[in-house]
Amino acid sequence: MIKAGIFGATGYTGYELVKILQHHPQVDVAFVTSQSFAGQKLSDVYPQAPHLPLILGEEAPLDAVDVVFLCLPHAAAAETAVTALAAGITVIDLSADFRLKNADTYASWYDKAHPAPHLLADAVYGLTEFARDQLPGVKLVATPGCYPTSILLPLRPLLTANLPITDPIIADSKSGVSGAGRTPKQNTHFIEVNNNFSPYKIGRSHRHLPEIEQVMGWFRPDAPTLIFSPHLLPVERGILSTIYVNFSESVTLEQVRPYFTAMYANEPFVCLLPESELATLAHVTHTNKCVIGLAMTGNTLIITSAIDNLVKGAAGQAVQNMNVVFGIEETTGLI
Amino acid sequence: MIKAGIFGATGYTGYELVKILQHHPQVDVAFVTSQSFAGQKLSDVYPQAPHLPLILGEEAPLDAVDVVFLCLPHAAAAETAVTALAAGITVIDLSADFRLKNADTYASWYDKAHPAPHLLADAVYGLTEFARDQLPGVKLVATPGCYPTSILLPLRPLLTANLPITDPIIADSKSGVSGAGRTPKQNTHFIEVNNNFSPYKIGRSHRHLPEIEQVMGWFRPDAPTLIFSPHLLPVERGILSTIYVNFSESVTLEQVRPYFTAMYANEPFVCLLPESELATLAHVTHTNKCVIGLAMTGNTLIITSAIDNLVKGAAGQAVQNMNVVFGIEETTGLI
Amino acid sequence: MIKAGIFGATGYTGYELVKILQHHPQVDVAFVTSQSFAGQKLSDVYPQAPHLPLILGEEAPLDAVDVVFLCLPHAAAAETAVTALAAGITVIDLSADFRLKNADTYASWYDKAHPAPHLLADAVYGLTEFARDQLPGVKLVATPGCYPTSILLPLRPLLTANLPITDPIIADSKSGVSGAGRTPKQNTHFIEVNNNFSPYKIGRSHRHLPEIEQVMGWFRPDAPTLIFSPHLLPVERGILSTIYVNFSESVTLEQVRPYFTAMYANEPFVCLLPESELATLAHVTHTNKCVIGLAMTGNTLIITSAIDNLVKGAAGQAVQNMNVVFGIEETTGLI
Amino acid sequence: MIKAGIFGATGYTGYELVKILQHHPQVDVAFVTSQSFAGQKLSDVYPQAPHLPLILGEEAPLDAVDVVFLCLPHAAAAETAVTALAAGITVIDLSADFRLKNADTYASWYDKAHPAPHLLADAVYGLTEFARDQLPGVKLVATPGCYPTSILLPLRPLLTANLPITDPIIADSKSGVSGAGRTPKQNTHFIEVNNNFSPYKIGRSHRHLPEIEQVMGWFRPDAPTLIFSPHLLPVERGILSTIYVNFSESVTLEQVRPYFTAMYANEPFVCLLPESELATLAHVTHTNKCVIGLAMTGNTLIITSAIDNLVKGAAGQAVQNMNVVFGIEETTGLI
Repeated sequence: MIKAGIFGATGYTGYELVKILQHHPQVDVAFVTSQSFAGQKLSDVYPQAPHLPLILGEEAPLDAVDVVFLCLPHAAAAETAVTALAAGITVIDLSADFRLKNADTYASWYDKAHPAPHLLADAVYGLTEFARDQLPGVKLVATPGCYPTSILLPLRPLLTANLPITDPIIADSKSGVSGAGRTPKQNTHFIEVNNNFSPYKIGRSHRHLPEIEQVMGWFRPDAPTLIFSPHLLPVERGILSTIYVNFSESVTLEQVRPYFTAMYANEPFVCLLPESELATLAHVTHTNKCVIGLAMTGNTLIITSAIDNLVKGAAGQAVQNMNVVFGIEETTGLI
Repeated sequence: MIKAGIFGATGYTGYELVKILQHHPQVDVAFVTSQSFAGQKLSDVYPQAPHLPLILGEEAPLDAVDVVFLCLPHAAAAETAVTALAAGITVIDLSADFRLKNADTYASWYDKAHPAPHLLADAVYGLTEFARDQLPGVKLVATPGCYPTSILLPLRPLLTANLPITDPIIADSKSGVSGAGRTPKQNTHFIEVNNNFSPYKIGRSHRHLPEIEQVMGWFRPDAPTLIFSPHLLPVERGILSTIYVNFSESVTLEQVRPYFTAMYANEPFVCLLPESELATLAHVTHTNKCVIGLAMTGNTLIITSAIDNLVKGAAGQAVQNMNVVFGIEETTGLI
Repeated sequence: MIKAGIFGATGYTGYELVKILQHHPQVDVAFVTSQSFAGQKLSDVYPQAPHLPLILGEEAPLDAVDVVFLCLPHAAAAETAVTALAAGITVIDLSADFRLKNADTYASWYDKAHPAPHLLADAVYGLTEFARDQLPGVKLVATPGCYPTSILLPLRPLLTANLPITDPIIADSKSGVSGAGRTPKQNTHFIEVNNNFSPYKIGRSHRHLPEIEQVMGWFRPDAPTLIFSPHLLPVERGILSTIYVNFSESVTLEQVRPYFTAMYANEPFVCLLPESELATLAHVTHTNKCVIGLAMTGNTLIITSAIDNLVKGAAGQAVQNMNVVFGIEETTGLI
Repeated sequence: MIKAGIFGATGYTGYELVKILQHHPQVDVAFVTSQSFAGQKLSDVYPQAPHLPLILGEEAPLDAVDVVFLCLPHAAAAETAVTALAAGITVIDLSADFRLKNADTYASWYDKAHPAPHLLADAVYGLTEFARDQLPGVKLVATPGCYPTSILLPLRPLLTANLPITDPIIADSKSGVSGAGRTPKQNTHFIEVNNNFSPYKIGRSHRHLPEIEQVMGWFRPDAPTLIFSPHLLPVERGILSTIYVNFSESVTLEQVRPYFTAMYANEPFVCLLPESELATLAHVTHTNKCVIGLAMTGNTLIITSAIDNLVKGAAGQAVQNMNVVFGIEETTGLI
């Protein structure tokens, strides 16, 4: 059995992780931390949660675990990672701290100097389907952001193929409210969200943009520019990205589709929909799946891509990564 | 034209009041205050609001108004009322400060000594249909709470009649989220509210209980005890109270109904439904109405009563009271 | 392995059953039927469902199964039960057909003569915690209704105790929309439900009333009358019943609570909350639990009771019953 | 006073029209029709509606009205229009029947031959801000579709300017459920919509596409191709369109914005947001406004445009058109 500790277990991502690991046959949860609720039990915060005692992060018994999951704010995650790595423990980070390879880029988007830039080179960006070969045995995994997962998985077969994509690619994304975190804010108040729908940080201003473009660059060095428009949906969970890719010359769906099937036909968590079907949140909520629909209109490919932001977009993919790191069957605990 | 000032205009109740007064043909809004948003405009807080500048309460030009509406936290409201009354201005208070006649009761339920107990005797409890004769020309009106309005209006014809009601009366009430205010809290977070439904402070523990029982005592000195169970509904606005009144001997609907028609047949804002119909939120949202359905089962009368908590339960009734105080047609601005 | 067939798999209850049985380690789903979608796959109706072929009920291979679950309209269920029982197959019925012991009562509430009155005496009413000893090896189980489950479980310890309960008991119940079925109707249209809340068939007019009172009579022959007020909540799933029980003399919570602990302390699916806690939908959605909160106010006990109408209120309890019938550990597939 | 009749008053659009006209100081509603609810009152269908008797369309007293509004299914609308026009009555059609100028295009998108092709040339396409000069005194107005209104108003200043727009323009649109009509269907069932979000008929397959492109061609003969992706939002009302317009050479927001201000600065119902602000549904629900936000990213202009689909997208714009047709102040009844 792998012994796991979870830092930041009372946020939505942390609790989702607890729920998954509880049913994971090869993992024992050794401790869960919370800075705000230490001294209480997880069931005091979530009525269906197990009665796990919440402890302060600084009091976590690192010697009792093989792996830690970090569901912490950025910067705090990096600091905890340094301590855990020094103790020889595998770190699966769910924050933004190790996603960007360039510390300057991090500093400019996250408003502070990176707390541990020397770790950036070794961290593996855990978009599992892409990083599978790099993951076994690594000590530090950066779990991708939720929006990036929903956009990068469908763009990967396109960008790695030699297709004549024109600039820019447009990703019009819509996310449920859990993506905004559990701390009450005006924009997550029921009255502000319910019956409303609102775009925010559109264009090139959301923190997930540099992360997505970094990985697009790994897929294809001269990848097109991305225009990324997030919107807040009045639903609890789920991201749907509608992605527009223009080609400079005529390309048919018959030419495009094989790149997707070649890459994903055998993937357990990526599902290519039949031709006439479009991705919806109902396909994916509470699953670790990314569902992809393809439609061609003129020279424009319209991709609909859906994930559950808390599962494939966070806790589920983190566990998927842990499985690969530890040499466990990749789908364990996730289906 | 009556010149009105609104203290606390950025809460849900205050903004509802602005919306009503904007269309009131005999009122001009002279100022709106906000402690948190002073310096901004109301339209910065609510995108559909008029561009009224928000000022600090202490900077409000009291000499420019005939009436002030207080949408302030309790205690703060009483302090502002003292100042406004000293300036000769009519005060329509929407807080809890002048609803209870007994300062000790206030202190025990609101956790602080009443800031102005000498004003309690003169304040008129503005359940308009009940207080109509007392209101003209008064200087201080206490607008009833939302739950009390939904319960007291249907109980009034019953309690003033000589019917053999047994103890206790049960009011099982359900309120939309706007009743919990605009300040973000965990229990108003979209994720906590949506798809949930929860009772709170049931029995005899909610602050509206002493207010309701005080007025029940005015209706009938030996009024039965009330059991009051509030619940939080995942809707924006509206209160539905399902009220159970047991009789000690056989009473028919034909005996009960005339008390309601006698009292309310000519009321513009109280609507008695036909026999087979039950009150729902859809009857009342965005209106100043209280809709009442009656059903008899054995010796138990089941009353369904619905109001919009922000209108008849707050801002609408406040304006209705103002109309009566100033001798204007009571429905002005409200239909 | 137990081989199971599901009649009516495309309704919300039927699909919930498929989801549970898919993960049940001792059950294989042999067939699923649908009169409306025969020829298609279950995944055509629910995007996350397995690709099970839907067949007509009359073409179901009864010789391939040990047990059938009937998620059919009333009367249709009884007819299928007759056929299945004749073939020696165990029947777990989720319709209303075998809940009432009296065929005349059935006829008056369900508007048709009972199709198989000779079976009523032998059917076991599967409120599992109550019927556990009767279930092993029986051939016909009537799974209780959703409202009845939420009301009967908390009333059972009270009624079987010798407490001085006065007439009537009041159950103010609120249910999510899935209880109204999947067939589109005006009252399940998003626009009619969202932001609304409405009582319906209150008092003594809902079909679940005779079922509840029948079982109350089993608990205590002179059980009080029930007043039962259902309401429609704008949520997907869950029932919360707020139940008011008056005592004719002073009774304390300390006297009442032991009856609940004695009866339910060791039950895996009935959870008595700590004293200050009230049941909410968030405690129970997507679980087979019934969560019960107790509060005493004067001589009135206020019970808050919550279940998931599709799980403990239907498919989950059906599987719980099947487990007991077949001698399997009762919680299998349900936790 | 203008005497108005409303055909199809029980749909969401028809009822919205009743609500607007009730408060219109220069209109009397002479009759309301319904094929499904004739014999009942409008208040039987909508609890807040006035007690207007519903009559069959064929029994409508055309001699009693000056104008009729047609909230009917396509084809039925055209047939009623023929009759009303023959009686000399002004027709404001809210169906799709007179929006397309080409009868063949109509036939191919609406699956039947146009019932009155001879009327197409004279019908005025009532995007009021565009058609204002054509409207006074006309006899037949085609009120634009909801999606078209949200897309055409912001595209108009762009297309009429001489800006180097490249092909295609992309409109990613999201609509509330009322757009799907009141008749219960699987895709408007609360359980299917709530917590879901789904694209449909994306690319070039929705019936509003030819309508939008027809009018884009009026704005600029060589207008770019449109890619139009509708999505269903779990909200009651409102459309938000996120529109992407690429330029073939560098264009700044400072160059683009003046075209919008020149065209819309004095429009009562088109509101250009300040530079940093994005349109949301909260800006527009229950108003006749179209709110437009502009953001430039590289050479791509991202427009966010919001309307209430039932008001500016249907009933409100219909009344706006009526006002202009009859020479009444355009905003009457709408603010």
